[in-house]
Amino acid sequence: MIIVKIGGNILDSPERLQAFLADFAQLPGPKLLVHGGGKIASAFGQRLGIEPKMVEGRRITDAETLELVTMVYGGLVNKQVVARLQALYCNAIGLTGADANIIPAHKRPVRTIDYGFAGDVAGPDSINVAALETIIEAGLTPVFAPLTHDTQGSMLNTNADTIASVLATALAPKYKVQLVYCFEKKGVLQDSENDASVIPHINASKYKTLKAEGVVHAGMVPKLDNAFAAMQQGVAQVLICEAEALTSINTGHYSGTTLSMN
Amino acid sequence: MIIVKIGGNILDSPERLQAFLADFAQLPGPKLLVHGGGKIASAFGQRLGIEPKMVEGRRITDAETLELVTMVYGGLVNKQVVARLQALYCNAIGLTGADANIIPAHKRPVRTIDYGFAGDVAGPDSINVAALETIIEAGLTPVFAPLTHDTQGSMLNTNADTIASVLATALAPKYKVQLVYCFEKKGVLQDSENDASVIPHINASKYKTLKAEGVVHAGMVPKLDNAFAAMQQGVAQVLICEAEALTSINTGHYSGTTLSMN
Repeated sequence: MIIVKIGGNILDSPERLQAFLADFAQLPGPKLLVHGGGKIASAFGQRLGIEPKMVEGRRITDAETLELVTMVYGGLVNKQVVARLQALYCNAIGLTGADANIIPAHKRPVRTIDYGFAGDVAGPDSINVAALETIIEAGLTPVFAPLTHDTQGSMLNTNADTIASVLATALAPKYKVQLVYCFEKKGVLQDSENDASVIPHINASKYKTLKAEGVVHAGMVPKLDNAFAAMQQGVAQVLICEAEALTSINTGHYSGTTLSMN
Repeated sequence: MIIVKIGGNILDSPERLQAFLADFAQLPGPKLLVHGGGKIASAFGQRLGIEPKMVEGRRITDAETLELVTMVYGGLVNKQVVARLQALYCNAIGLTGADANIIPAHKRPVRTIDYGFAGDVAGPDSINVAALETIIEAGLTPVFAPLTHDTQGSMLNTNADTIASVLATALAPKYKVQLVYCFEKKGVLQDSENDASVIPHINASKYKTLKAEGVVHAGMVPKLDNAFAAMQQGVAQVLICEAEALTSINTGHYSGTTLSMN
């Protein structure tokens, strides 16, 4: 089972998105896609006069921002991706964490900052795996928008990386799960200024060293922390690569950075 | 199996919507909801500077209007309804016709008017009943937005009444289907100016007479034509009522207008 997360940079380019979806549709076996959409949401937010609210560099999801992301992630981006995958003979079904109650979450508690309608997922045990398995076993390919719900009637805005890793972990007891994070770089870089300096493989002890030495770029730390946490909970492998490298999975000659425990 | 269609007037009122969804969640047995959302789409369209395009009184779905309705119907309205039903212990799953390829459609051919991205459904035989049955048999309650796809990669805007009737007809061989259209009046009125003049029952021959006499209001004719066509193809019964009358289904003392062939 391959779980792929794509971010905004792919969604912003119709040509790159189409090429990526064609590669994704070709992946054999059960698969699942998680997408972001922050840039498209920001662009529509601007047109709607919804100003991005940031506190200490982090986005706050107030009521009108929640409406915006529910529309853009759950509607526009999700359904466009589903329609395009259908045209590529991939039987996609668009979902949020509210649908079939697959990802119940809770509003992030207010400590120093009130993040508004931001949803945190307790962990893989809270995932409704049975419903998700029914969908996968029916031959369908789930496409998840980065949205969850609070089970009290409200949608919540949840980080797409988090959704990808929690679903991967929840499905790990049933499937051999490979988690792929597609992002704007070719992999984890030794030198963040040099795109050719991709580190081909990082295991848990090397990650500890790289983090201690400050080699891993600050923005990458949460992604890699998430990845190693997922592997500790049963995910077989994590690959960090650019979207164009997805087909390398079929050849086994991975392009990008592979992560493993040992 | 009960298939209920709700229109914009309920979606516009948070209190009426909440009361309706509570009633819907209480309906026993398998059920399915189809919603509209035209007024909410128009309001967001105005904020986005997307002018409604009308030709001969009918709405045209150009490219930016398609984006708008995909966001509003497939995202905002659909996921808000799903999240609220989940809070009412109804295990809802939001869908469009693109998801699991349940409702393939085709762009309406251009004759005198180019309706743009308006989707027509060939008929109940084109519905992917197997995928829909899998979802229903898993104990899930499908919630459909009025969107389909062209199987070539594009979403299409499709009338919610049409989606309700084509799904009802497609499911009729498997389930005893009751189709309920909730709208702004208490039922089909003998006198369109008098809300108390609900006609309690109309059969096929009475409908012919009412139509010939011009008693049935022009706006009702497509709805009733659809309803009788669905019954001719196996739907057991059609009820036309206001949203608040939904609970009358549980008592058997229907409030509104029941339609049947004989």
